[in-house]
Amino acid sequence: MTAWKEYQEQHKDRFLEELLDLLRIPSVSAKTEHKEDMLKCADAVKASLLAAGADTVTIYETAGHPIVYGEKIIDPAKPTVLVYGHYDVQPAEPLELWNSPAFEPTIIDGKIFARGSCDDKGQFYMHVKALEILVKTNSLQNNIKFCIEGEEEIGSPNLATFVKANKELLKADCVLISDTAMLSLDTPSMDVGVRGLSYIEVEITGPNRDLHSGVYGGAVANPITILAKMIASLHDENNHITIPGFYEDVVNSSNEERALMAKAPFNEQEYKDELGIKELWGETGFSTMERTGIRPTMELNGIWGGYTGEGAKTVLPSKAFAKISARLVPNQTSDKITELIINHLQKIAPANVTVKATLHHGGEPYMTPIDSKGYIAAAKAIETTFGKQPIPVRGGGSIPICALFEQELGIKIIFMGFGLDSDNLHSPNEKFNIANFYKGIETIPYFHKYFYEG
Amino acid sequence: MTAWKEYQEQHKDRFLEELLDLLRIPSVSAKTEHKEDMLKCADAVKASLLAAGADTVTIYETAGHPIVYGEKIIDPAKPTVLVYGHYDVQPAEPLELWNSPAFEPTIIDGKIFARGSCDDKGQFYMHVKALEILVKTNSLQNNIKFCIEGEEEIGSPNLATFVKANKELLKADCVLISDTAMLSLDTPSMDVGVRGLSYIEVEITGPNRDLHSGVYGGAVANPITILAKMIASLHDENNHITIPGFYEDVVNSSNEERALMAKAPFNEQEYKDELGIKELWGETGFSTMERTGIRPTMELNGIWGGYTGEGAKTVLPSKAFAKISARLVPNQTSDKITELIINHLQKIAPANVTVKATLHHGGEPYMTPIDSKGYIAAAKAIETTFGKQPIPVRGGGSIPICALFEQELGIKIIFMGFGLDSDNLHSPNEKFNIANFYKGIETIPYFHKYFYEG
Repeated sequence: MTAWKEYQEQHKDRFLEELLDLLRIPSVSAKTEHKEDMLKCADAVKASLLAAGADTVTIYETAGHPIVYGEKIIDPAKPTVLVYGHYDVQPAEPLELWNSPAFEPTIIDGKIFARGSCDDKGQFYMHVKALEILVKTNSLQNNIKFCIEGEEEIGSPNLATFVKANKELLKADCVLISDTAMLSLDTPSMDVGVRGLSYIEVEITGPNRDLHSGVYGGAVANPITILAKMIASLHDENNHITIPGFYEDVVNSSNEERALMAKAPFNEQEYKDELGIKELWGETGFSTMERTGIRPTMELNGIWGGYTGEGAKTVLPSKAFAKISARLVPNQTSDKITELIINHLQKIAPANVTVKATLHHGGEPYMTPIDSKGYIAAAKAIETTFGKQPIPVRGGGSIPICALFEQELGIKIIFMGFGLDSDNLHSPNEKFNIANFYKGIETIPYFHKYFYEG
Repeated sequence: MTAWKEYQEQHKDRFLEELLDLLRIPSVSAKTEHKEDMLKCADAVKASLLAAGADTVTIYETAGHPIVYGEKIIDPAKPTVLVYGHYDVQPAEPLELWNSPAFEPTIIDGKIFARGSCDDKGQFYMHVKALEILVKTNSLQNNIKFCIEGEEEIGSPNLATFVKANKELLKADCVLISDTAMLSLDTPSMDVGVRGLSYIEVEITGPNRDLHSGVYGGAVANPITILAKMIASLHDENNHITIPGFYEDVVNSSNEERALMAKAPFNEQEYKDELGIKELWGETGFSTMERTGIRPTMELNGIWGGYTGEGAKTVLPSKAFAKISARLVPNQTSDKITELIINHLQKIAPANVTVKATLHHGGEPYMTPIDSKGYIAAAKAIETTFGKQPIPVRGGGSIPICALFEQELGIKIIFMGFGLDSDNLHSPNEKFNIANFYKGIETIPYFHKYFYEG
């Protein structure tokens, strides 16, 4: 197997340069102004798959951004791995907090700083390069399919339609995803679940226009004040979410699982220092790892209303807005929770205002069994290249499409992530360690080998 | 006196055109980008005063925007009226809610739509035109001084220094201000007081960077959630402000004053319909007129934090901000209330976040006696041109400089406002009825006559 490592060593600088080129394309799916960049990025993904040795690559149009599908079929009778990833990225704002431009990848201390470096361009590209290694060293034994979409960061609104319409095309024995983190290179881990998501936007309207806060203040309900009261009421004094029925379908983790989680390395002081906070926060009765793994949460992702510019303006605004999202755990369902949240906001709003609450996107929580053929192959691959067995952990993030893949294709999802929690996903100064990038490329061929043999 | 009316009739179109020219200058004092426009506007005010017949006009530099001082001295032994006004305007944002550009005055149905049309360019300009009428008809009997500043909308931070340093220059027998509203042309009224102001900005910092809401959500305090809880706690279930000591210095109005206020025409259904709201809001135990007149209030003028752009971003933000202002009544003082608010915000913030709260600006409340020579002259002038005695009312807005004028110059302030509450001050589509503009110009010469005679 040294041929893989040898090939990687010879080409590692080019591998990195290719990734940097991909990171230079501002493929922000949430913003219509980047529509052309999305097409450009899809073309670049297609070209990279063909160059790596894929037999065919097709760009599938959708109602939104296109999906890139590629495949390398050795023998239809052999096992098939479907690699899922996404070429779209989160918006880069707030731009002023980046130390280097978000779409001009900058390498400092062995880290690639760029939007999408880890989430998910850097991670899915490891699979493209692993394909190249397997093909160029004539050692690919199974089939590999790639489904790289452009709408993960906006909730994959069109992937379901594509998957349902192309079950035969996507037919595989497992889905392999690198879009999560591991604890560290020293403490490899694998996610055994991702949380679901209900993401809504709420608009509170008071008076029909902005008012002078002196002339009308004190007599007309201020939508910011009302919105604040509504938000404040969503968590009680134990930071338990107050929406009736919210926890109804939550499958409580067993004492065994909680005991196992408690054994994972976690240094509270380091965690706080790294985030610059004095005290942690969260639901009473649960540890930090539990709060971000096995428990559902509700976060304010954005808020705005009134005058937000320089200086002072004495206005009583007409409207106030918030973006609110809940992370869901088994067996909560996105549709039900979204409806609960929206109905609750309508219910608690006083008659002085009107509420418009709408769904942005949702996704179901997903758990993968640790005794599946795919999980075992991934764990063995990591053990081979890291020298340690990965710890199974619950991931806090969401990959909305997981539940759908299992439902439509009848196969399990394997999360083999090589990022770190500290990679600033969705934040300014997103990064990906070059060491993690290379380690991922080194590990993935072993996954295919063990999956084929397993 | 028909000479005044005759002169006005002959020149009324020019009067209007001149005002429109003044409105075309975007003199937004809060924004540094408009620094040049402020100078341009001060020059225009100077030119207009000279053209109207002022003897001398001087532009006084300050640490901020300049003050325009002009005078027409008939005889230093005769009574002197000091006209105060401001040539700066509020920011025009949100621009998308204007039906016509804020700085391209547009006349529809006899109304001038433009930022500053009523507050205060249209109103102080009535005094410039009244001066012209009096001078050109050779009927000015008293002295008139003009102090037109450029920082009223940002709390007049430099006017106090100017007034204190120029007491002799500003020496007068009363201050006349047209920067308030009347109930309507059919129901003329005069403000007998303005509220004070404490305007602060608060910044809540949680983690040292924006975080992924899935990876950290539920374990790290969200500054938007914390800010919302803090804001929510500022009013209790009776919409009483909860800050300890906030009401301590409030002089409660007498039953007589409250009974008088209750007699002023107020149609609740019309008020609600005009604002498009179903229910009023406010402190339990007080009427709408009382809530906006005799009671102190606290309003959220702006809020922002996290992702506020198009679409969805699953971020747990590092910071959240709010602009908060309180309106004050006698005998509250701005410094004390500002300190109470800032200390309270610091105190109620949980240890998970840090709070930075800073003063934007403040101003003291002011009450004027209805038996002063100036008030009587103004009421008589209004009776002359409107055919009805004005009703004395408490204004909800603030003119931060009033208390200072009285303290430094030892004279009373007279509020003779010709605007309407529905003029959208500080809001999109600010307007000033041309009829009110002309009626003000018609009325002001009578004020000078009666003040001279009184």
